[in-house]
Amino acid sequence: MTVEQIKATIASIPDYPKPGITFRDITPLLQDGDAFAASIEYFAERYRGSQITQIAAIEARGFIFGAALAKALNCGLTLLRKPGKLPGEVLSQRYQLEYGSDELQIRADSLDKNDHVVIIDDLLATGGTVAAAVQLIEQTQASIQEAAFLVTLDELPGEQKLQQQGVACYTLCRF
Amino acid sequence: MTVEQIKATIASIPDYPKPGITFRDITPLLQDGDAFAASIEYFAERYRGSQITQIAAIEARGFIFGAALAKALNCGLTLLRKPGKLPGEVLSQRYQLEYGSDELQIRADSLDKNDHVVIIDDLLATGGTVAAAVQLIEQTQASIQEAAFLVTLDELPGEQKLQQQGVACYTLCRF
Repeated sequence: MTVEQIKATIASIPDYPKPGITFRDITPLLQDGDAFAASIEYFAERYRGSQITQIAAIEARGFIFGAALAKALNCGLTLLRKPGKLPGEVLSQRYQLEYGSDELQIRADSLDKNDHVVIIDDLLATGGTVAAAVQLIEQTQASIQEAAFLVTLDELPGEQKLQQQGVACYTLCRF
Repeated sequence: MTVEQIKATIASIPDYPKPGITFRDITPLLQDGDAFAASIEYFAERYRGSQITQIAAIEARGFIFGAALAKALNCGLTLLRKPGKLPGEVLSQRYQLEYGSDELQIRADSLDKNDHVVIIDDLLATGGTVAAAVQLIEQTQASIQEAAFLVTLDELPGEQKLQQQGVACYTLCRF
């Protein structure tokens, strides 16, 4: 299955959640077993044989791609979660939303300097959440290979934001 | 890797989140690439060659096992989400928590009578969320093969509750 065929399974919903915004809906891709498996295989081919020890997946849809990729690579899955979801000692990072702010957490003991990590999420838009993920992982001393996304929205500055943090981006589908 | 070895990677945190409760923490299992892959393989072996069309995964940690299993079986992944997270027309089911209530949603067009579904979540406790998932899937006319869990807490009535709904349960690790 080609990347274009995978991309064609993503639905576009105009004027959602508000006028002028086109929402990219990945649920039809997930429900198409061939498309979902093929998308994971593209990621897996990219990282197979590399030194990756952990896939760092952002709650909640990042868990979907992160978990399937971790299984395909036989490497670990580290969770980046919303506040109050992880037991034990956690590191927290606050980040800005369009209105207000939110927070991301990682277990303090989940990664160390021997870890090589790929950060994964379903979609890169403004990059605020992923930038917080980068800051959390840097606090653990782990090294970040790159950040990977099923979808990148090219009209938004997410990639530039991450590149300014020194993090390379990989994406399967661009809109 | 045996089931006992997988089970040994699950941490037990006494008196969390409150005195008398032992919290079963699956994050060390997820971070152990061999244990995570082996747990998914046990599920995949069980369903390989069956008529399953979709894995129905419950937000958020159900996404982890559901996605990796869907990829392993090359079948689709249907999301059962918290309110307000799914675009388009949704079906909703309210369920009781210890204090108050919560709600689960599925896309109205996600399943139909030709679908054979396995419901998956990380942990079965009282069964309230999974019971809501069963009710939602029954509304779509899809048939439910069974509900599958990494962990079942034997002292709680989750399995009985689901069996009363006519849904069989499969679990990898019991506590």
